[in-house]
Formats: sequence, C-alpha cells, structure tokens
Amino acid sequence: MNKTNNHIPALITIFGATGDLSHRKLFPSLFHLYQQDHLDERIAIIGIGRRQLSKDDFRAQVKKSIQAHVQDTKHLDKFLQHVFYQPHDVNDEASYKKLLDLSESLDKEFSLGGNRLFYLAMAPQFFGTVTDYLKSSGLTNTKGFKRLVIEKPFGSDLASAESLNKQIRRSFKEEEIFRIDHYLGKDMVQNIEVLRFSNAMFEPLWNNKYISNIQVTSSEILGVEDRGGYYESSGALKDMVQNHMLQMVALLAMEPPISLESNDIRSEKVKVLKSLQVLQPEDVQNNFVRGQYDEGTIDGQSVRAYRDEDKVSSTSNTPTFVSGKVSINNFRWAGVPFYIRTGKRMKRKSIQVVVEFKEVPMNLYYQKDKHLDSNLLVINIQPNEGVSIHLNGKKYVQGIETEPVQLSYSMSAQDKMNTVDAYENLLFDCLKGDATNFTHWEELKATWKFVDAIQEQWDKFEPEFPNYESGTNGPLESNLLLSRDGFKWWDDIQ
Amino acid sequence: MNKTNNHIPALITIFGATGDLSHRKLFPSLFHLYQQDHLDERIAIIGIGRRQLSKDDFRAQVKKSIQAHVQDTKHLDKFLQHVFYQPHDVNDEASYKKLLDLSESLDKEFSLGGNRLFYLAMAPQFFGTVTDYLKSSGLTNTKGFKRLVIEKPFGSDLASAESLNKQIRRSFKEEEIFRIDHYLGKDMVQNIEVLRFSNAMFEPLWNNKYISNIQVTSSEILGVEDRGGYYESSGALKDMVQNHMLQMVALLAMEPPISLESNDIRSEKVKVLKSLQVLQPEDVQNNFVRGQYDEGTIDGQSVRAYRDEDKVSSTSNTPTFVSGKVSINNFRWAGVPFYIRTGKRMKRKSIQVVVEFKEVPMNLYYQKDKHLDSNLLVINIQPNEGVSIHLNGKKYVQGIETEPVQLSYSMSAQDKMNTVDAYENLLFDCLKGDATNFTHWEELKATWKFVDAIQEQWDKFEPEFPNYESGTNGPLESNLLLSRDGFKWWDDIQ
Repeated sequence: MNKTNNHIPALITIFGATGDLSHRKLFPSLFHLYQQDHLDERIAIIGIGRRQLSKDDFRAQVKKSIQAHVQDTKHLDKFLQHVFYQPHDVNDEASYKKLLDLSESLDKEFSLGGNRLFYLAMAPQFFGTVTDYLKSSGLTNTKGFKRLVIEKPFGSDLASAESLNKQIRRSFKEEEIFRIDHYLGKDMVQNIEVLRFSNAMFEPLWNNKYISNIQVTSSEILGVEDRGGYYESSGALKDMVQNHMLQMVALLAMEPPISLESNDIRSEKVKVLKSLQVLQPEDVQNNFVRGQYDEGTIDGQSVRAYRDEDKVSSTSNTPTFVSGKVSINNFRWAGVPFYIRTGKRMKRKSIQVVVEFKEVPMNLYYQKDKHLDSNLLVINIQPNEGVSIHLNGKKYVQGIETEPVQLSYSMSAQDKMNTVDAYENLLFDCLKGDATNFTHWEELKATWKFVDAIQEQWDKFEPEFPNYESGTNGPLESNLLLSRDGFKWWDDIQ
Repeated sequence: MNKTNNHIPALITIFGATGDLSHRKLFPSLFHLYQQDHLDERIAIIGIGRRQLSKDDFRAQVKKSIQAHVQDTKHLDKFLQHVFYQPHDVNDEASYKKLLDLSESLDKEFSLGGNRLFYLAMAPQFFGTVTDYLKSSGLTNTKGFKRLVIEKPFGSDLASAESLNKQIRRSFKEEEIFRIDHYLGKDMVQNIEVLRFSNAMFEPLWNNKYISNIQVTSSEILGVEDRGGYYESSGALKDMVQNHMLQMVALLAMEPPISLESNDIRSEKVKVLKSLQVLQPEDVQNNFVRGQYDEGTIDGQSVRAYRDEDKVSSTSNTPTFVSGKVSINNFRWAGVPFYIRTGKRMKRKSIQVVVEFKEVPMNLYYQKDKHLDSNLLVINIQPNEGVSIHLNGKKYVQGIETEPVQLSYSMSAQDKMNTVDAYENLLFDCLKGDATNFTHWEELKATWKFVDAIQEQWDKFEPEFPNYESGTNGPLESNLLLSRDGFKWWDDIQ
C-alpha cells in the first residue's frame, strides 16, 4: 500500500457504535487505516450508543471486534487510545450538549483542527432527528470540515427520500453528505471504470453497435438470517435494486467523464440514471420479475421458506428476488437491454457482470460448426475477483473447427491479501472529502423514480409467493425474461 | 481427433525420401494419419532416392524414423506394408519408366484409383527436370488426380521463380501445385484466421483507427547448424521473409473472405500481398535492417560467429537476421506499420505476433499514473501456444492507480498432446485437395517483388558484418527502426 503524507486530522463520531456494522466493518477499517499510516495520531473516534458503557468497556469491545476481523493487530492498543464512548439518547438535547463538550475537548487533546465526521450507522428513522440536533446543539458549527455519512436505506420511495433529504439538508450541504453504497467501495466495482477508460480496446466496442446485452447479477446463498424485521419493510427491490444494482448499471453505461474529479464522474452517472426508461404500468409485468424463496436444499442442508423465517409474516409478499430488464434511452445504449438480477437463497454466491457482444456479422464457420459462442467480457466482483474474456479459437483437430477459449485473469493470493475492504476505501474517501464513490441526491432521485414505478404496479397485484425453491437461480419467469429476447443468463461461468 | 469417412486413396511418391525432411516429418506424419484412420488401406508410398536400397532396407529406415518421432507406434508394421522404394536418377528417362511400372502395379494392388501425389522433398534445381519427366514418361497421365507438392525455396528472385513456375506449369496446372509453407500448417498460425473471423470483438478494432502497429517475430536460438551450404545461397531474407513472415502478415491483414473456400481466402491474401508497399531504393536502408551473428554466449555456452560455421565463407555477407517495416497500402492499414523480425542465434526461440492497440484517446489516469501501457493482443505460436490480452486494471491500493493485467490462455497439456504437426495438417490437406494453406503463384509473385527490391539495394552496399552478438535480439538498428516511430519491440512478453 502506498503511504500518503497528507494525513487528515478528524473527529469521527459514530452513531450506532455498538451495532453490527460498527464492529464488523467500521472499527476494523479505521484501525487498518491507522495501522497502514493513512491516519496519524490526530484522530479521535467517539462511539455513540444507547447503552451505558464505560470508555474502558467500550474499548474492550472494539478490541475484540478488531481482533476477530484483522489478522495483524500490531499497534492495536495505541489505536484504542483514540477511541471514546458516550451513552446517548438521540431524542435528548442534553445528550448532544455532552457530545459537544467531549468533541471540543478531544479536538484540543488530539489537535483535530475542528474536522468532524458524523457517521450514522443506525436505523434511518433517526437520521432527521440526529442531523437537526447536530446543528441546534452547535456540533456542526466548527472551524474545520463537517461531513455526514449515512447508510442505506435512504427513504423507502421517492417521496420519503425527498422529505428525508430536505431535513438533512437543513444541517448539511449536499457536498457534505456522503451516502454510502458499499458496492461502490469494492475494488472490482471501482475497476469497472478503470477497465473501461484506461483500455483503448473497449471504448470502441462499448455501445449498441457491438454489445447485445449486459447482465449484472448479485446473488446470495444466505437467506434473510436475523434481518427479517428490517427486510420485511424493504425487500430485494429497495434493498438491492434501487442502490447497488442500478449503481453498477450506471458505472457500466456512463459516458467517459471529462476528468476523474468527483463531480465529473457523478454528473455522467446522473445522466445515465436520468436516461433509465421508467416503466409504464402495463410494461412492469413483462420487464420485471419478483420472487420469494420457498424451502429447498443448499449444500445438502434443508433450508426453510422465507415465510417461515424469524420476524417474517407467514403471508409475507416481500420479494427476496428481483430480476429485470433495464433500458437506457440514449444514443449509446438504445436497444441494449441491461438485465439485472439479485436474490437470496440462490444457487451460488456471486457478484458478476457479463458483457455479451453481438455475434459476428457473418459466421464463416457456420457450416462447419454451428455453435459459435458470443464473445463475453466477464467481470467477477465476488467471491472471485478478476476479469475474463471468452473468445472462439481453433480446435486442435484436423481441419477448421472452433472451440471456446477463455482468457482470464484472477487476482493472485498476494493481491487478495492487499484487497482493501469496501468500507476502508469509503471511510478514507470521506476523510479526504472525495465523494466520487458516494451517491449524489440526483442519483437517488432518479433511481427511486425508476423503482417506484415498479413497486406501485406490484402493490396492485398479489404475487404468487413463494415461487422459487431455495438453491436455484430464481423463478422460471426470470429465464423467460431473457429467452423472449433471444438471450440467456450466463450462469456458471467465470 | 475426429474421424472422417471420406478416405482418399492415393499413391504418394516422395522424391528425396532418404533425406532429412522425409524422415523427420513426412513419414511420421503419414504414419500418424494412417494410424488415426484418416488414411485407409488404399494408400501406397514410393520413396525415391539416388541410393540403391532394397524395399526392406528402406522400410527398416522408415520404421526407425517413425519410432524416433512418434510415441505410439501401434499399427506401424501394417503401415510399412504400404511403403516401397525405388532407386532413381532424376535425369534418367529410364528411371521414370520404371517408376511408372511400379506406380501402375501399386495402383492395382492397393486400389488407388489412379490418384497420384508427387512430393518433391529435394533441392529445387531438380524441380523442373522432374516435372518435365513426370509428364513425358506418362506418370501424370492418370485417370485419378495428379498433384505436385514442392518445398521452398521456390526460386531465388522473381525472375527465377517465374521461370521455374513456367517449367512446372508445363506438367501441372496451378490448382494441382501445392507449394508448402510449413508455417501455414501450424495450428496457431491457422488460429489467426479463426481468432479474427469468429470473434465479434476483434473485427471492429482491426484497422488503422485502433491498431498502432503489429509485430511479427520468428527468432531462433540455433545457428545455421549443418545447413551452411544451403543457407549461404539464401539468407534470412529469402529463407524466412519472402515466405513465412509475409504469409503471417497476409493472414493478419487480409479482409474477411466471402467464404472459407480455398480460392476465397487466397484471393484475399493475394490482395494484401499486392498492396505491400514495394520499397524505393532510397527507402530500403531506413525500413529494413540486415544482420549477421557474431560469436557470443547462449545458455552459458560460447558459440561461434556465422562466418566461422561449416561451409560458410569467412567473408560471407549472408544475413542471418532481418527486421523491417512493412507498409500495406490499403484503406484498412494505411499508416499502420507491420514490423517483422527473424533471425538465428537470438536470445530466445519464439514465433509470436503482437498486435499493439493505439492509446486511449484521452488518458484520464495520466496525472495519477503516467505509465498507462498500450493494450496488446499476443498470439504465441511457438514454443508456447496460446493467446493473451494485456490490459490495464485497477491497482489494489487505496485510490485509483492502474497496473498491467494480463488475461491469458495457454494450451493445456491435453491440447498439446493433440497438436497436429504442421506437415501432417498439410499432407492431409493435399490429399483432400484443399489448397487453402499453400502458397498460390500470385502470392509468390508479390512477395518476390517485395523482397527483390530490398535485395537489389543490399547488393549494392557491403554490410558491416558481423553486427550482432549471438544470444541477443539482433543489431541495434533493429531497435532504432521502431523507436524512430515511437514504438518498441515487445520482447519478453507472453
């Protein structure tokens, strides 16, 4: 990892510091940044939680979490000296007053220059309350920078997102708001942009003249686990499509930006998302498929249906699977379907992009060899990380026959060790003030508009759930979605 | 290997049957075709040589050669029952009379249908004499097909090639003449066409808009060995450039043929070779580099200079190295240099094509990372066989930096076992009457014209030989050839 001399002093206040995200991701990432010398001693972290905990109790908890997630724990005790805790009631003005006192004293003690980062790792219904109090208590009135980091979900439809945004904007300007989409922190997702714009081979092919369709899949083997409560009010469309899936579509479809500056990249993404063809009510059924998992067998283990999961209604109509055909109405992409697919309890765990090129204009090898496969560019994001190109080559037999040839690059074990967790990338970006890999309000607006049109139509009709067996690739309709267009999901390729 | 039911009966008469090529390549290839059931029992082979040998002596020799070159010798004794021998003086009419008698009796014995293939694996000065006698003796007057297979060199310049061709054409029509260029029999050379025309990704990029230059290298570690006598009268320009190197250029540059029929492919190749920019005398020096190896060290062994080799003049000016810039004057390739390079006693043994793409129109990553490499398509022909694509990807560090990423496909050990020797491919093609991978007279004419212009100029000036050390990549001027254009040889990549 390359060292930077531009250390950024900051006070990082984490709301929801005793929660799962903080312990699995935020503290390990902050520690790793510190250990790698991306942060220096001018850093302080205040954990905020409802529970009454002493500073030492909290440090012990953080220590345990970091030890469970980071192999090399050198400098851990030194790091913990920067960690503090405050029991807090988000609805109580006095709590914010106390937080201000602690903030000011830590600012002095660690020479933080008044830089304040507020990370809301908590349920979204509190976002507005917290940001209002941050302002009224004077916490945002600081001589350094003030930044707000928020986790999804940002609203549950366009209207609620707009109202939440309005509330937050009373305390923070748009450029001070860092809306996390952790897919944008993944190295291989960031690689989409690098692959597209640093290789002369791709740009000439990257349009409706040469690409027949693009498939973006994010599938999990896991079910809803212990998140049934949250998931019931969200579902795959809002939990995955509105953010991660459409963000990947934007990265794949955007025009080359005029520079790599945050605003230039985001304005190209906004243009794509504004070009999404919002579905007419009568088109929803033919373009989007919803599913919910039934019981089934995964790795020889029986698993239960979604409706039998904890904190899930036994008549739930929440979709655990969505696939759909997304059209982008612009010069580059008119006529090229972007198929997206995401689901729980599916056959394999995978985040993958497949770019399928059109067939050769004239198949010279047709008579000799009917199966000339389309060329594919495969970007494997998770769990494998790498790129492969699928071509046709000469078969090693007498005469001319073709066979599929796969050119592939997989990250080496060495590279994998260096892989930076998405949250570590994103936290560091926040500190540097680089908003490139965060969602702009304009992006949210466009994606909610797109998703609302589907949800509204779905609300009118009762789905026939459950409609796919656990451990499969989802409901049959998902395959029909592509086969109607003459395509198929490229399952089981790397 | 796929079996064919279309067995072709034929009498194969090999002139020069006791020579090196026959024993190393022709008999092992014929045996392997027989063993793989591409040939059936209706086959007979007459070995022709000056020496007095009995049929049994000759069969014993052939048996030994095959055992030395083929691992699995199942059916070898059965195959040898098809092998015959005739001592022969190519200038003696009576020899041909005897050959006719033997041919007619074998034709009857093995039901060969009068099909006759004459393979001239002998010094080219005899080609004309032999073909004249084949006709006058009545050997070519047969009810089946008659075909002539000839090895290089076909002439030593355009004039001598024309005169030789005229002579041969008295006995054989153009479509009955199979001029061997064994590079065209190599699987990976044949793959150039398949890669280009069965993959939709390449054709849009395959022109002067996206390709900056193409490099074709055929380098050997070996010196001239015991071929000094032949080589002195030939040299790298005539031994390699006129045929193998320009043939590879033609395969890389040709337009998509209207079909894979022999005539359609060859007419596209002829068009490319006719578009070669024949150098003006004053341009030879700047576009072509000749070299001759000096002593040096290869694998820790001292090796001697070319001028010290057996049967080589101590003041020889024969080039053992040629590199050059070839321009193709057509719409697709105007402005794209094809750099070719071939030599003996070089650093590594390799036949390789490197297609270098132009840089991205605007390097967005310039400020962060000055070294953005060009995209490359590498076709490894020998000793490795495979294809690789060199791209830029995201470096696995904080922030956006690029690093080279290589996507590669190498033939598996299994594939390698199935690799068919070039001669086996070509012999089978001859029997089937498929002339696709043989050199048409029009191709020869164009390549000799191109090569003559260089040779004529070289003859006017004494070179400063030797000018490169054994075990290197050739003379310095060869590097300057590319650096003047802003390029470099992509040495040491796969």
